[in-house]
Amino acid sequence: MTPTITTFAWVPEFARGFVRDIRVRWACEEVGQPYEVKLIRDAKTPEHRRFQPFGQVPTYTDDEIEIFESGAIALRIAERGKGLLPDDPAARARATQWVIAALNSVEPWVSQIGVVNLFEADKPWSAMRRDKVEADLHGRLADLAAALGDKQWLDGDTFTVGDLMMISVLGQLRNTDMLARHRNLADYVARGEARPAHRKAMADHLAVYADAPAAA
Amino acid sequence: MTPTITTFAWVPEFARGFVRDIRVRWACEEVGQPYEVKLIRDAKTPEHRRFQPFGQVPTYTDDEIEIFESGAIALRIAERGKGLLPDDPAARARATQWVIAALNSVEPWVSQIGVVNLFEADKPWSAMRRDKVEADLHGRLADLAAALGDKQWLDGDTFTVGDLMMISVLGQLRNTDMLARHRNLADYVARGEARPAHRKAMADHLAVYADAPAAA
Repeated sequence: MTPTITTFAWVPEFARGFVRDIRVRWACEEVGQPYEVKLIRDAKTPEHRRFQPFGQVPTYTDDEIEIFESGAIALRIAERGKGLLPDDPAARARATQWVIAALNSVEPWVSQIGVVNLFEADKPWSAMRRDKVEADLHGRLADLAAALGDKQWLDGDTFTVGDLMMISVLGQLRNTDMLARHRNLADYVARGEARPAHRKAMADHLAVYADAPAAA
Repeated sequence: MTPTITTFAWVPEFARGFVRDIRVRWACEEVGQPYEVKLIRDAKTPEHRRFQPFGQVPTYTDDEIEIFESGAIALRIAERGKGLLPDDPAARARATQWVIAALNSVEPWVSQIGVVNLFEADKPWSAMRRDKVEADLHGRLADLAAALGDKQWLDGDTFTVGDLMMISVLGQLRNTDMLARHRNLADYVARGEARPAHRKAMADHLAVYADAPAAA
């Protein structure tokens, strides 16, 4: 059975290039895992919520398991395939560490940029708190930039699922100037997004919406 | 070599019972893994940031690996020990899924409550956005409460590292009324916190600060 992922049949224009199915597509491409895509119009249905309680995408099914959470799915794909998790136990644990760091120590700060600039842009408090939100994220990114240093990837010369997740999270900042303030981080994201597997994943993601209207 | 975790020698009174070393202590207690604690006064030093770039605790070292991120550490302890990860591959993947869900789909919303009520309580925008922050979290908790239903643990009768992480995240709401709005979730957290392993972990955590002054 070919693994199947679920994502949206349609998303508004601002969300194209940002939906989390990209992370899962990217992981599949890196390990050479074919996958099928099931497109859904609505993730808030009882049927979808049966195993995605938050009514979101992606979800993932293979011959053995059925899970949600892009981070858990990427780890699953990395564990089954070759190329995203080193064999060395210490390096393997660090790769998992970076996946969790991306999701818990970086993404919540990245997401707040979207909250003030997009989702709550019309709220009276968003303009007031934007400087603080940006300063907090800037601090996180400075810490991460220091950890990356002049290394190619977070753990050195070997690209792992930890880089995949971190670059996916940081890529959400592409319409802002937050990344450009940390040259090595901006280069790191560009390096990750230039990988053939990422290019293919992003192209396949965007192709779903190529002929779709901006508003439904 | 006994695994060693790093946490703070002192924290302000409001943080006692909330530092993330509790998660790691709890995981160790569940699997019967002895551990040592290295207390540090300052996590912002270059030495500590060498492998915790964000200048936080806990960190974890065993005879094979050295990592940070409480989620990654809990997974490591679960993989090495017995009792937190089912053998069945599907159940095992779901346990990992719930760890990630706790850290990426619930904790960011929980943390915003702390932002408006504590860390940014003095900012003019916090009173303005409190209702929205609470409503967003309420929605997340309602989704989670529906997924839990009348089950004992998230995956049914078996407590996993996913429950450990979710209950640790939800426990951060104990000084609010957010959990009480979802009876089954409140019961779920109480059930988890009543486990002997959690009681021991919390007691050992609090003992570090038992004789410490509220302000340093």
